[in-house]
Amino acid sequence: METRRLFLQKASLSAMALAVPALTPLSAMTNSMNTPAKDSKTLRVAIMGLGSYGTRVAEAIQDCERVKLVGVISGTPSKIEDWKSNYNIPAKNCYNYDNFDAIKDNPDIDAVYVITPNALHKDQVIRVAKAGKHAICEKPMATSAEDGQAMVDACKAAGVHLLIGYRMHFEPNTLEVIRMRKDGELGDVRFFQGLCGFEIGNPNQWRMDRALSGGGAMMDIGIYAINGARYMIGDEPIWVTAQEVKTNPEKFKEGLDETITFQLGFPNGVIASCLSTYNMNNLDRFFLNGSKGWVEMQPSTGYGPIKGQTHKGPLNEPIVTHQTVQMDEMAAIIFDGKNPEVPVNGEEGVKDMKIIDAIFRAVETGGKVPLNLG
Amino acid sequence: METRRLFLQKASLSAMALAVPALTPLSAMTNSMNTPAKDSKTLRVAIMGLGSYGTRVAEAIQDCERVKLVGVISGTPSKIEDWKSNYNIPAKNCYNYDNFDAIKDNPDIDAVYVITPNALHKDQVIRVAKAGKHAICEKPMATSAEDGQAMVDACKAAGVHLLIGYRMHFEPNTLEVIRMRKDGELGDVRFFQGLCGFEIGNPNQWRMDRALSGGGAMMDIGIYAINGARYMIGDEPIWVTAQEVKTNPEKFKEGLDETITFQLGFPNGVIASCLSTYNMNNLDRFFLNGSKGWVEMQPSTGYGPIKGQTHKGPLNEPIVTHQTVQMDEMAAIIFDGKNPEVPVNGEEGVKDMKIIDAIFRAVETGGKVPLNLG
Repeated sequence: METRRLFLQKASLSAMALAVPALTPLSAMTNSMNTPAKDSKTLRVAIMGLGSYGTRVAEAIQDCERVKLVGVISGTPSKIEDWKSNYNIPAKNCYNYDNFDAIKDNPDIDAVYVITPNALHKDQVIRVAKAGKHAICEKPMATSAEDGQAMVDACKAAGVHLLIGYRMHFEPNTLEVIRMRKDGELGDVRFFQGLCGFEIGNPNQWRMDRALSGGGAMMDIGIYAINGARYMIGDEPIWVTAQEVKTNPEKFKEGLDETITFQLGFPNGVIASCLSTYNMNNLDRFFLNGSKGWVEMQPSTGYGPIKGQTHKGPLNEPIVTHQTVQMDEMAAIIFDGKNPEVPVNGEEGVKDMKIIDAIFRAVETGGKVPLNLG
Repeated sequence: METRRLFLQKASLSAMALAVPALTPLSAMTNSMNTPAKDSKTLRVAIMGLGSYGTRVAEAIQDCERVKLVGVISGTPSKIEDWKSNYNIPAKNCYNYDNFDAIKDNPDIDAVYVITPNALHKDQVIRVAKAGKHAICEKPMATSAEDGQAMVDACKAAGVHLLIGYRMHFEPNTLEVIRMRKDGELGDVRFFQGLCGFEIGNPNQWRMDRALSGGGAMMDIGIYAINGARYMIGDEPIWVTAQEVKTNPEKFKEGLDETITFQLGFPNGVIASCLSTYNMNNLDRFFLNGSKGWVEMQPSTGYGPIKGQTHKGPLNEPIVTHQTVQMDEMAAIIFDGKNPEVPVNGEEGVKDMKIIDAIFRAVETGGKVPLNLG
């Protein structure tokens, strides 16, 4: 936790800081004075980007115990009006893309959840950080590891959290698989397979615009296989190979990947074999194989319910709304310094971006690209 | 059917040939004179190599309608004695590896099923062909495409059939999937995944001796994923990439592959992603994905019962003993000129060998190896 250490160094200079949770920016600190116990403290969130996923998050927040949707940032005035009435958001907490830096003077907002096209994340998150607000950023966190690192650095410098929207890191069945693996129930993990994709519809959406998306299926859905390989195997890959096929070059223009198979090599000969595609349905399949047991999940990363089989029988953990749990857990990370089972911080996001960069390079070169994720 | 054409050319020179089924060697022709109808004709088989799989085939033949186990070829006299009594085999039909060329003078044997270590197949099949007997050869047919082609050429020159022991080509659930695909029920096929392997035990078996096996897991179990990709997709791959990992170099010495992931590119952007391993259990999984439907088989190539799910529901074709059906169908291929749904001839075997050669080359070079299977 670089950011935590950084804050603690700063905090040691301030007697006041000792009285408040680590890494809470000033605006929230003010508020924290009014709340009785730290574990009941509410994370007051503004959503930036009021599209379909933004709406899904807004709905999920309604069921949160510790998170409240209090603000919006949007370039579309009519959407702001809708959200004001739908979610009872005061006018003073509504911003557009020109004026949202002023959020730094708004003590009623603790964090901004950036749910905009990928290529915009970097500048937006950096502006959020400069406004002294925690940043929650949808994945992929950026369109390159370099941009991702710049976001991490900016948030660190501002003393705010940067959390990536890895909802699966809090999903109960996923966590049960991770527990099984950690407790040795699978023996030595040897192979992971992640088949992630769907047939994308409307070619005019921003995801099909390279300038906004930074890529095709890989940025959108392939990242689930990458991230899944890491949390299912519980290690970091040391090399990657990748192969691209494109059946529809008219729809999937230069720089927009349609279908990529890729392999991630991990220490001790563990291997992950993955598929990322915008040209197939019936996917969303994880398979983890160890020397003593196995786990199969299908669906594995969809919005739910997640279902799975293991050598011991079916996965039967509670079915939850992923984004509700994610947001409550993020409140605990921000206010209580909670360490989640699988990290969701900016550094975690940069690792996925480094792998995506390497996959694209492996497609180009046709060879094995080494990885060093530290 | 090159061999058939070749025979017909030869047959046209002989009035007698018109009265007998195509491609029946002289010894069987003699016998055919005594049988009332061609579809009741029995294929009289000698098994070469009396190991565990040879025994499995012998047992399966007991339930055949058109195949009879009538002879053995073995280097172990005690095994010959056991088989003579177990299967009621006359002494005159028993051979060893030195004298089995004399089988050419034995009119009571139509075919020899070669079930010996891979590296021995080539010379043995060529000797069988030269003895004028049909050759059935266990897969992999050889340890290289070059050797496989030499076997095809020898059998063609001798006017005998060469059939490879592709038992899955006759398995009812597999054939139902092929029917679904051909009838368009899956739409356009886009992706195949074959995960084939098991944790191999005794390191002293011939399969772990490169000189006899020609390779490790790929020759033994990886070939099922290769062959499966071809019959499930219904096309021939045009390129291959492959990645090898070895967790136990002491057990898996130079030239013995432990774990290889490989990808086969097919025309129209169809891709197969496969795993071949001697280091994992819980595999034997096929997945075929199309634009309109999907099929999942598990187990997909084990001795049975084969089980599967499709977008329409479970596969419910009859459970059969694969080798029994295979042998009866091979009798029909040999005596009736039947064309099986998926070929099992030597040319089919050579295609798999060319792919295996290319996989090993792709592992070495780290790049994409083009394939031209014609």
